[in-house]
Amino acid sequence: MYHFGDEDELVKRIARQFLPGSGPKLRLGIGDDAALWKPKPGFATILTSDWFLEGAHFLPEKHPPDSVGWKCLARAASDVAAMGGTPRCFLLNLALPAAATGVWLNDFLAGLRRAAKSLDCVLSGGDTTRSQRILISVTVIGEIREGHELLRSGARPGDLLYVSGTLGEAENGLRLLRKSRGRVNPKKEALRKHLFPEPRVALGRWLAERKLAGAMMDLSDGLSSDLARLCSASGVGALIDPGKLPLPHGIDRESARELALHGGDDYELLFSVSTRRVSRLPANFRGVPLTQIGEITAGGGARVFGKDGKPEPLRAAGWDPFRQKK
Amino acid sequence: MYHFGDEDELVKRIARQFLPGSGPKLRLGIGDDAALWKPKPGFATILTSDWFLEGAHFLPEKHPPDSVGWKCLARAASDVAAMGGTPRCFLLNLALPAAATGVWLNDFLAGLRRAAKSLDCVLSGGDTTRSQRILISVTVIGEIREGHELLRSGARPGDLLYVSGTLGEAENGLRLLRKSRGRVNPKKEALRKHLFPEPRVALGRWLAERKLAGAMMDLSDGLSSDLARLCSASGVGALIDPGKLPLPHGIDRESARELALHGGDDYELLFSVSTRRVSRLPANFRGVPLTQIGEITAGGGARVFGKDGKPEPLRAAGWDPFRQKK
Repeated sequence: MYHFGDEDELVKRIARQFLPGSGPKLRLGIGDDAALWKPKPGFATILTSDWFLEGAHFLPEKHPPDSVGWKCLARAASDVAAMGGTPRCFLLNLALPAAATGVWLNDFLAGLRRAAKSLDCVLSGGDTTRSQRILISVTVIGEIREGHELLRSGARPGDLLYVSGTLGEAENGLRLLRKSRGRVNPKKEALRKHLFPEPRVALGRWLAERKLAGAMMDLSDGLSSDLARLCSASGVGALIDPGKLPLPHGIDRESARELALHGGDDYELLFSVSTRRVSRLPANFRGVPLTQIGEITAGGGARVFGKDGKPEPLRAAGWDPFRQKK
Repeated sequence: MYHFGDEDELVKRIARQFLPGSGPKLRLGIGDDAALWKPKPGFATILTSDWFLEGAHFLPEKHPPDSVGWKCLARAASDVAAMGGTPRCFLLNLALPAAATGVWLNDFLAGLRRAAKSLDCVLSGGDTTRSQRILISVTVIGEIREGHELLRSGARPGDLLYVSGTLGEAENGLRLLRKSRGRVNPKKEALRKHLFPEPRVALGRWLAERKLAGAMMDLSDGLSSDLARLCSASGVGALIDPGKLPLPHGIDRESARELALHGGDDYELLFSVSTRRVSRLPANFRGVPLTQIGEITAGGGARVFGKDGKPEPLRAAGWDPFRQKK
């Protein structure tokens, strides 16, 4: 947990940005050996932990520090949303080179604080140390009403397959960022979803509370990679209609489809709905479109209709750190 | 959380080593977006997260990989012990260079598995990715009977100050390791406490259940650094009698005292006991000596009796990553 000494100055700076640091359910936060946590009665705790590393998950010369702060929490919180739960508090492990302890850290904390406020998720502890590169590991603790969790394993043949929002916009933003020279304008609309993704917490909770979805997960590595995981966990196949994919505006249709199938970092929800329940699903949830993109099949893996109208295997081509860098 | 794809092969290798991966209270482990956890009725959840980084916390050319696996979990679990709680499950974030995914990873997992078994602490999720150096972030989830947690802030003037075990042995082991050429024999007794520390879980729980201690914390950075934190949290001072420090055998007394005052990584418990309760404290707990090393004072910060018998300030000279590398 956070320590005193010279390191303490850093910890105090972090803690100051997040005070008051204890919600009603968090009885003890920064400053002791560990934090104490208790969910509401009748709720279970959700635990998830994610890397956010310089070079792998962000590029310090390209990504504004407030985006790094926002995104490291948002993407971990998205795993809680993916089960239908509500993020409540988080632990931040932060390792920094000396050069990043000034302006970079201030801007990082500002972005992190905005995400924490937006998610109503409280900083409750962590660890700090020195390192040559910026290393971030975030653990998010959430809660869910017992028995209401939506797993990847709940899809059944015949279910319809849905996604929230649009697909491919974040990957498109990453490509724009890579092509740009120097620092980008973080307010640019085409970059917004890549830099400041918004996990679908309210939608996930709504689907879980009403038991509307069968299986659910968030799309972090790209539809083609993530759908294979849902199929594997549920022991089913899936068939995608590429004509139904909700594409972002302002990109030509052919490119947009590729981005929607394989682009990562969207943090939209992918979920299955049984045909019995599908009439209860609205076309929009609080302004976020819910789009049927295909259906669950008995087998055949993840497939997509090809140009000739015949199903073809959907090759997993999303983000995989161990494939990319081999 | 753990993912599929090529990365999946790595995750499967990790998961295989830890199956069966779900205890009675862990309802869902590796393979979904997040893990679900619920403590026993009447218990609260303890959360703690620690770095364990190549170069900062271990040296790959010196530290055997099974020690890295053991220690990354043991030291995070020690924060749970420090509150009087019991570790139950953990999340492992692991980033590896390609060269470490073979023998190094196998030996690392063997050590981690031994620690997990010894602590009865179940792997329940995490994240894997590539990196240039070996990066480890461990989050431990524990439980404690509500209202029984022992904080750093519970010390009162007049309390007696105790430590478990001996102090300085781990730092001495680190010095031997640094001096040695090439890989060391990890079975060497003088290295045991540095390479394979054993968090004092049973003792911490026993002190918490009987409400014997006032304040408690674990000694990770060295007595001089950690005692200052306890004093600060409790708003008290402390006076140490160096003649009472429990020293390891086989080191000359003068060096041993320095090691006991400032050496890190012992993971012993430091706790205060009110004079009313001190008669209920045994001299040993399951073979681990409990030694009174000083007392809590109304103020004056952390002090130690000097050679002339007068109290002197105890300068914090334990491990601090931000002081060492400035």
